[in-house]
Amino acid sequence: MRRKTEATRQRIIDAAYECFWRAGYARTSLDTIADRAGVTKRTLYSYVRSKDDLLAAVMSHHDALAAQRLKRIGDRMPIDRDGLIESFFGQLSGWASATPRWSGSGFTRLVVELADLPGHPARALARRVKGATETWLAGRLAQAQVHDPAERASEIMLLMEGAMALTLIHGHRRYIDAASRAAKRLVGVPARRPLRAG
Amino acid sequence: MRRKTEATRQRIIDAAYECFWRAGYARTSLDTIADRAGVTKRTLYSYVRSKDDLLAAVMSHHDALAAQRLKRIGDRMPIDRDGLIESFFGQLSGWASATPRWSGSGFTRLVVELADLPGHPARALARRVKGATETWLAGRLAQAQVHDPAERASEIMLLMEGAMALTLIHGHRRYIDAASRAAKRLVGVPARRPLRAG
Repeated sequence: MRRKTEATRQRIIDAAYECFWRAGYARTSLDTIADRAGVTKRTLYSYVRSKDDLLAAVMSHHDALAAQRLKRIGDRMPIDRDGLIESFFGQLSGWASATPRWSGSGFTRLVVELADLPGHPARALARRVKGATETWLAGRLAQAQVHDPAERASEIMLLMEGAMALTLIHGHRRYIDAASRAAKRLVGVPARRPLRAG
Repeated sequence: MRRKTEATRQRIIDAAYECFWRAGYARTSLDTIADRAGVTKRTLYSYVRSKDDLLAAVMSHHDALAAQRLKRIGDRMPIDRDGLIESFFGQLSGWASATPRWSGSGFTRLVVELADLPGHPARALARRVKGATETWLAGRLAQAQVHDPAERASEIMLLMEGAMALTLIHGHRRYIDAASRAAKRLVGVPARRPLRAG
């Protein structure tokens, strides 16, 4: 019985994540989520009290997934700074092209959608996940002997968030490639042109 | 009579813009917009047929405003590359700090909110506005004798979009300063540390 309960709960969370990620938080109804999870609305309400409650459950589950994803990204990364950056943006590009109607980071989208609600618990979680990613990046850059790894990690976060926004806006991935080239210049990988040529 | 009609129409558009920008498109009702514009819902319906219709009117008005804003930003910019970038990000920082509950670019937010609707007319407009900004930037960089101005303009767009997302996520403006420093390094302004020190 307990096993069945856990499986249903997880199915509801997965359905909610999928719907929120596709259509955003505000435009997703509990009816749509129940439909997608294959449960009645009555069953859904026996697991969660409200859409906000469900969002909290979705986000805390995806907080754990985000940590696993970083580990997986890291496992595929070479340790040299050039390869590290190519691999990081290459994996972003692969994700964007492998996902039908890709729409960027779910955490970023949620923050944008809840921009007028700075106190919303989902925003604190998004802040923590992004902060953890930046700290993790700084650690990898330090291992690769990159100078001033904390500042470079902030820059890579800037380029990554910018690349996701512009990929979504323009509908092609050339901004991810441009972000990768810029990141390589910033960490000091020799560019084809001298860096001060500007 | 015509003057009054135009004034009311503009008041409705301004109210809608304000509401969409604050709370996003999906979470804003026509009731809220009518309230804010100080008109009855019946009056509102004599000007627009639907929320989508109103969004189209808001966006085409703000397309014109975006062009004026670029001109104003440009008028304040020095022509040297160092000053140009400091002024660009400085104006972004000033906007973010002067606006209560600042929530970034309305065009970007709308694209994020409508991520699952690539064919929505608002998305085509956002694409055009962002493209125009990038072209305008490339022109300014070319005037400042920056090498490869088109690529540098893409990088500044990446850093700007990233800075808006991370400012919204973390709630402070240090990412705008980091974006400005990174942009200066990328266009080849001498940094305090040698650029290849990485």
